[in-house]
Amino acid sequence: MSIPPPEVQVSKVLVLISAIVLLCACALFRSSAAVKPVVAASTSEVSYDKDGNLLVPQNYREWIYLTSGINMSYTDTSAAAHDMFDNVFVNPEAFQTFLKTGTWPDKTTFVLEVREARNKGSINLRGHYQGTDVMGIEVHAKDESRFPGKWAFFEVDSSSMKGKLIPQSANCYSCHSAHGAVDTTFVQFYPTLLPTAEKKHTLSRAYLDENAAPAAKQ
Amino acid sequence: MSIPPPEVQVSKVLVLISAIVLLCACALFRSSAAVKPVVAASTSEVSYDKDGNLLVPQNYREWIYLTSGINMSYTDTSAAAHDMFDNVFVNPEAFQTFLKTGTWPDKTTFVLEVREARNKGSINLRGHYQGTDVMGIEVHAKDESRFPGKWAFFEVDSSSMKGKLIPQSANCYSCHSAHGAVDTTFVQFYPTLLPTAEKKHTLSRAYLDENAAPAAKQ
Repeated sequence: MSIPPPEVQVSKVLVLISAIVLLCACALFRSSAAVKPVVAASTSEVSYDKDGNLLVPQNYREWIYLTSGINMSYTDTSAAAHDMFDNVFVNPEAFQTFLKTGTWPDKTTFVLEVREARNKGSINLRGHYQGTDVMGIEVHAKDESRFPGKWAFFEVDSSSMKGKLIPQSANCYSCHSAHGAVDTTFVQFYPTLLPTAEKKHTLSRAYLDENAAPAAKQ
Repeated sequence: MSIPPPEVQVSKVLVLISAIVLLCACALFRSSAAVKPVVAASTSEVSYDKDGNLLVPQNYREWIYLTSGINMSYTDTSAAAHDMFDNVFVNPEAFQTFLKTGTWPDKTTFVLEVREARNKGSINLRGHYQGTDVMGIEVHAKDESRFPGKWAFFEVDSSSMKGKLIPQSANCYSCHSAHGAVDTTFVQFYPTLLPTAEKKHTLSRAYLDENAAPAAKQ
């Protein structure tokens, strides 16, 4: 077996070094490129099972918080039977688009979490704070190619985080359509987004007419 | 000038290729490493000006939402003069650490936003929703090397988002220290974190004793 000259040995070592460096570079690129989609998919994308049920990520509370209300009702003036807060979250991508455009992009997803309101506990002496019991979860999702009216409502089981489609004939669809400030959504109750919609002139005609009527001025 | 043998020419080319690949790898590493701190700095890090004032990011509402209350008081049992919600946010890094450990890391920052509560408006008939007016902002920040007791409170101007240090003699320090469920913070009012602290056994002795007392059981 002949021994190759020193230059050839050096060049072989350099080829090996090049290959290692290239592999490391590729691995680095793959890992840095892979981080973002994985995080986004695990935190802010809903999906559907084969029966059309909505699958909501467990960590929806890490989405963007929009607002909270307590004992709100659009139909009932009598006192609430149980004090309940509602917290609204939206997926971060949709929120960022709304800030730029004043409208909701395809795949926008709102999660409405209904949570028990407690009065006395620890050192609190008055008012209400939120307890650990979740009383209900609803989702309002935009998927232009999936739903006839672009949007759909789902009632979500808080254990499985699986959402059952609410039929298009339900009141929530007609009420949101008639009164939603932007694209059938209640932006009038999202305090940091209402000014954006006003600035971008994206408030619905129905909402503007309703608020211009004397009866609505309170 | 003598022409070097082909093996030496090849090895020079390979050295050049190695150097280029290495430079690219370094550039790639630097750019991927640089992305995260820049994003973090713009979204979830507070800083201090030369006078020790706290500078809070404008987008604190894109941090992690912890809870909301309405008209809460730890000292006053009389009715609230104005209905007000409070919303609590924490920086995402601290939240992720809490999920793993049940405790707050250095640089934890809470923002308490006090917001007007409205009753009638748009189609709402009862209860309260949040309006566009921010009535106050307070911050509770942990910075072990900066503050004698590791934590400090700040009163924040909602226009400039500049926070003025509240003196250590103020009631908020002694109250949080005496009643905070975890590390001087009111985790007892953060519904998704209280179970974590219970599971990780990080609830303070003071909180556990207080809750074991019959008078606190309501």
